[in-house]
Amino acid sequence: MRRVIDFGLDSGTNATAVIFSAAILAMLWALVQFLIIARIPVRSEGISDSTGLVNGSNDEATTRRLNEIYTAIYEGAESFLRAEYKVCAWFCLFFSAVIFVLVSWGTQWDFARGLFTTLSFILGAGTSILSGYLGMKVAVYSNVRTTVSAQKSGWTQCFNTAFRAGAVMGFALCGLGIFMLYISLLAFRIHYPDPEDWIYLTECLTGFGLGGSSIAMFGRVGGGIYTKAADVGADLVGKVVHGIPEDDPRNPATIADNVGDNVGDVAGMGSDLFGSFAESTCAALVLGSSIGLTGGWDAMVFPVAVSAVGIFVCLICSFIATDIKPVRSEKDVEKALKIQLISTTLLMIPAVYLAAETFLPGEFQLRATVGVVVLTIHPWEAFVCVIMGAVGGLIIGLITEYYTSHSYKPVRELADSCKTGAATNMIYGIALGYKSAIIPVLVLALVIYGSFAIADMYGTSLAAIGFLSNLATGLTIDVYGPVCDNAGGIAEMAELEPYVREKTDALDSAGNTTAAIGKGFAIGSAALVSLALFGAFVTRIRHASNDDLFLNGVNMLQPITFAFLIIGGMIPFAFAAMTMKSVGVAAMQMVLEVQRQFDEKPHLLDANPTERPDYDACIAISTQASLKEMIPPGALVIFTPLLTGIFFGVYAVSGLLVGSLVASVQLAISMSNSGGAWDNAKKYIEKATPDSDLKGKGSDIHKAAVVGDTVGDPFKDTSGPALNIVMKLMAVLSLVFADTFYACRGGAGLFNLH
Amino acid sequence: MRRVIDFGLDSGTNATAVIFSAAILAMLWALVQFLIIARIPVRSEGISDSTGLVNGSNDEATTRRLNEIYTAIYEGAESFLRAEYKVCAWFCLFFSAVIFVLVSWGTQWDFARGLFTTLSFILGAGTSILSGYLGMKVAVYSNVRTTVSAQKSGWTQCFNTAFRAGAVMGFALCGLGIFMLYISLLAFRIHYPDPEDWIYLTECLTGFGLGGSSIAMFGRVGGGIYTKAADVGADLVGKVVHGIPEDDPRNPATIADNVGDNVGDVAGMGSDLFGSFAESTCAALVLGSSIGLTGGWDAMVFPVAVSAVGIFVCLICSFIATDIKPVRSEKDVEKALKIQLISTTLLMIPAVYLAAETFLPGEFQLRATVGVVVLTIHPWEAFVCVIMGAVGGLIIGLITEYYTSHSYKPVRELADSCKTGAATNMIYGIALGYKSAIIPVLVLALVIYGSFAIADMYGTSLAAIGFLSNLATGLTIDVYGPVCDNAGGIAEMAELEPYVREKTDALDSAGNTTAAIGKGFAIGSAALVSLALFGAFVTRIRHASNDDLFLNGVNMLQPITFAFLIIGGMIPFAFAAMTMKSVGVAAMQMVLEVQRQFDEKPHLLDANPTERPDYDACIAISTQASLKEMIPPGALVIFTPLLTGIFFGVYAVSGLLVGSLVASVQLAISMSNSGGAWDNAKKYIEKATPDSDLKGKGSDIHKAAVVGDTVGDPFKDTSGPALNIVMKLMAVLSLVFADTFYACRGGAGLFNLH
Repeated sequence: MRRVIDFGLDSGTNATAVIFSAAILAMLWALVQFLIIARIPVRSEGISDSTGLVNGSNDEATTRRLNEIYTAIYEGAESFLRAEYKVCAWFCLFFSAVIFVLVSWGTQWDFARGLFTTLSFILGAGTSILSGYLGMKVAVYSNVRTTVSAQKSGWTQCFNTAFRAGAVMGFALCGLGIFMLYISLLAFRIHYPDPEDWIYLTECLTGFGLGGSSIAMFGRVGGGIYTKAADVGADLVGKVVHGIPEDDPRNPATIADNVGDNVGDVAGMGSDLFGSFAESTCAALVLGSSIGLTGGWDAMVFPVAVSAVGIFVCLICSFIATDIKPVRSEKDVEKALKIQLISTTLLMIPAVYLAAETFLPGEFQLRATVGVVVLTIHPWEAFVCVIMGAVGGLIIGLITEYYTSHSYKPVRELADSCKTGAATNMIYGIALGYKSAIIPVLVLALVIYGSFAIADMYGTSLAAIGFLSNLATGLTIDVYGPVCDNAGGIAEMAELEPYVREKTDALDSAGNTTAAIGKGFAIGSAALVSLALFGAFVTRIRHASNDDLFLNGVNMLQPITFAFLIIGGMIPFAFAAMTMKSVGVAAMQMVLEVQRQFDEKPHLLDANPTERPDYDACIAISTQASLKEMIPPGALVIFTPLLTGIFFGVYAVSGLLVGSLVASVQLAISMSNSGGAWDNAKKYIEKATPDSDLKGKGSDIHKAAVVGDTVGDPFKDTSGPALNIVMKLMAVLSLVFADTFYACRGGAGLFNLH
Repeated sequence: MRRVIDFGLDSGTNATAVIFSAAILAMLWALVQFLIIARIPVRSEGISDSTGLVNGSNDEATTRRLNEIYTAIYEGAESFLRAEYKVCAWFCLFFSAVIFVLVSWGTQWDFARGLFTTLSFILGAGTSILSGYLGMKVAVYSNVRTTVSAQKSGWTQCFNTAFRAGAVMGFALCGLGIFMLYISLLAFRIHYPDPEDWIYLTECLTGFGLGGSSIAMFGRVGGGIYTKAADVGADLVGKVVHGIPEDDPRNPATIADNVGDNVGDVAGMGSDLFGSFAESTCAALVLGSSIGLTGGWDAMVFPVAVSAVGIFVCLICSFIATDIKPVRSEKDVEKALKIQLISTTLLMIPAVYLAAETFLPGEFQLRATVGVVVLTIHPWEAFVCVIMGAVGGLIIGLITEYYTSHSYKPVRELADSCKTGAATNMIYGIALGYKSAIIPVLVLALVIYGSFAIADMYGTSLAAIGFLSNLATGLTIDVYGPVCDNAGGIAEMAELEPYVREKTDALDSAGNTTAAIGKGFAIGSAALVSLALFGAFVTRIRHASNDDLFLNGVNMLQPITFAFLIIGGMIPFAFAAMTMKSVGVAAMQMVLEVQRQFDEKPHLLDANPTERPDYDACIAISTQASLKEMIPPGALVIFTPLLTGIFFGVYAVSGLLVGSLVASVQLAISMSNSGGAWDNAKKYIEKATPDSDLKGKGSDIHKAAVVGDTVGDPFKDTSGPALNIVMKLMAVLSLVFADTFYACRGGAGLFNLH
């Protein structure tokens, strides 16, 4: 075996250069954005009005208060993430051993495969942890700076601050992800220099996806439970029982609620999307490993190159929001964010075309997933697959917006339904969620059919890459939302002038809608990624069994396959039940704690309270609940495919994966959208005046809407988005352990039920 | 072709004799039960207490009032069913033409096949309509008689009256169903006397299942919307806003609510279960048609014989409830009903064994669904498959009871969650529903794997028959519930003594739990039936294409199959959204109408009202809403598979069917159980005293529980149970039109996308 240190200098020069420069540029760009934010001092400074008087609280006391809150949130988030990542670290240690042993055993004691897979698992997990941690730090750092920017006149500065905070996370994560993944790829190539062996190379890399995804699972679920326990608990006692506003500093759960935004929405979501990126790339590489034989290294790493190109596109388009068409008034905000998504998607079209023409040879061969067929692929076919994904993602995003923004009919109807009480609000909201899945599913079906028909499963994996090609922008917008939300919370807690809160609310409201779009993207891409991973699993089993298994495809009419198909369909429901109930349990604990504090400190609710709430007690409840409650659903998702494969064989696994994919997509879309719609219906009612049809804040109609919003919280921020990870994680896990499963009685499982 | 009139006199004597005698016995038995009920006069007669004074309202005025209410409900139900069946009749006329043309065309103008299929469709639809109508008549007739029986001392008479009412429906429907189906089978045999042609014979019969199922769809959806619009509407204004009790005669929606019980729960459910029976038999006959070649007629009609044997078993066991161990006190009620389910299941074991040994030859051959395999089946294998189904059904039923009865932990936890308001009640309730699907799905998976592995898809169809083998008992119990519910409503409206209402409430509460068990049965059997129908579809396409298609099974990794797999998964969600929203819309109309009446007639709510509510206006709203709203979901379910097959081909249909099966099972179980649990959590809180932990009726905790109950109404009585029909109807429709689909470019569909 030839062993030269070959960092892409003979073959693959083009791709390697582009990929590395994109990764490094992204990280530098994130640093630049961070430095711009860092220049804003944390100092309360109101605006002077026309008479020259300062119209605001720019006294020292407020500045001190701001810093106190900032520190409290920072410490709460830091301590939670430390605790969470400690659990994750133990899990990684344990699971690394599992991977090393099972993969080595499955490959007939090929310790190199076991070791490389384990290493890439650790690397993936580490990158994910780093991304989440970094995101949280940046978010907390920027929240308070967005608040003080909002004190200034005009919209440009505060929008830009929040937007740049998102960009730090978006670009840092993309850059870091691509960098780590590609470095691993090059390092493993030292051991597998021969294109014939690149299938093993890509197989080892799947550990990277598994690592990213496992941490994402814990991050999403743990963070999701944390944030929603605090949020639901705070709402139930505060808004519903005592009628005090959101984020009122007298509410003991309010700091926990704000911490939650940072650890759940920022760190959790960052890990989630990093996982999607890592898995889609791994799936595409495994499915396309046969391309290396005829197309060379550059062609094989084309999926990574697409992601790299995406970074350039996102970077260029980000100037539209901050410089070319800066935000000058409230109504510009939503438009600015939407333009980001649309412009990046459009600019991806020529960029991907160029990339395909540059990195792919005029034609190359691909082994099909089913049958002994070799397909000939041309660059334009790969291009079409990527673009189908990108455009499909945009359509799904816009449909999501239609169903969750109060600018359109569905949410307005939902708001109307509150007139007859909470029950009709619930019925309408659930129906809305179910209905909102129709068009996204049809779009997904079309993308799947199209990409699959053009370039087999490899096409589907390229479509998934396409979905995520403007990930940096997607992340920017996703982080932007919680930053604004938190900025508003800080303004409220520091008792700044009402106009500051109004401004951050307007920024946040636009962020809510675009966050829904982002969720649509995430779910759609997760479906494609899982399908691609499933294809990769089938390919790998075929390879392991020398075409003995799955040669004619995956037959649904195998007794064991069908039995596991319906079991697979049950998993997302079981998972949703566990996570929702966890939120319910933790929220009830929070309610009791807050109530206890109100009872013990009767002056806590006075207009000028003489007592201070015990924020830390609430933080402790959220932390403990989420760490405890994230284990069972995590275990369900990780051990179900593992045990299924070992005991019931690969036919069972194929049923399990497809069943869970089918059910997860529907449930994830409908839960996210129901939740989003309830939230915005409530906001819509809050904007109504007391003499209007909807009566406005404080009315019975509003109370009915708050019930919907509270139910929607775990729907849209805990269970719904975590279902993405359910489908992806189960699929990538099966892929990593495919050889192990095959080693169990030739894929029939230890129970030998084929 | 030999054409002799051969009514089972040469071959098939045994089976024919048993089947006919069971069918006729069942119908006679239903008549006997009816005559026993008819002997009870509708006359209010209170019990004398120990002092000899009559403790109740046995005056003429109350008797007159009882008769008025009875007539109002009767007329409301009659007029709704007439209107509904008129729509159904038009649909049947139109669809008969579609069937005749498409089936004839699909079989290359074999008009006999087209005609027979059409005829059996009309026969199936007609039987279903007849069953529903009969059930409604008997129920309305018995409700009021149950009320007057409840006035008497002791529990035996009123329990027996309600139970016998159920038995009339249960036995009449089973008898009629078997009779019609078997007559058709014999009639078609005149045209297809040769066992080689029995595959065509059974294919023609599938129209019977389609007919039954189509009417079931309209009955379930129309009746479900009717009953829940009235129920939710009445609850929202009456209980929640004005604080008047359920069924208070001052509430204008109350008659509509009681009519709804009869047209939704009785007629709708009767059609549903008749459809399940018809379809499972058709599926088993199609899948087992090859048995005729080696096993003869008796062996082929074994599935019908099992149903016939079931009638004997149910009849014998019914004596336990009415005579051997009659109900003497409140606590006997639930036990008596549960004993019915358990005893019939247990007695089925020897009975089916005997039937298998009698009607099946020592061994016989079956063509497998996948591959060119001929299986040799022995009677004990068929026996095991049937029993797996029967026992599996019982387990699923008991699990359903665990999750929905307030005797166990889940519902009590749910009741506790109401302490923190409606939102936590919703979160817990939805989580409970999702969780309750876990074990039923595992049981189903086991039954599917076991029966499938033993006797291919034929085994699965036998398991479905096993699930439904004690259908007569299941139906008895299912009808018993609404009869008691209505009896209570009548007692309230006629202002009888409170103890009458308490008695009927106790009867009803037991009925609620057993109704949940019945729903578990219905959903489980629907899953197996759909799978069996899917198997029959595959078999038929293989036959039509001379093994050109589906020889190696159904490959999930076909682009078009996978695309439609996720589309199929979306259908049940879309369907649930449509039906839930219909209930919401109709309920809001009802609320406005009731509110209008309260506003216009201010004295309506006085203790002794001087004005009478306009019941008919509410009945009209429910009728119009349900007739209008049942069309779109019906069309969705009927046209989706039809158009998919014609335009996208049989691979697409296979994905569609499996996807919808996987998602429907989960959604149906979870929606039914969430709804049942909310209902019983509310009842549990109502039973609590004001100084207890749960505060009891009228408290905030109770109000939160009422929200859950109201949301649960469409969950458990409209959308959830109708999802059974979604999966079955789509599958049976594909089966009926299989040849038509194949005729479209050899199964590739008009768009030719294979």
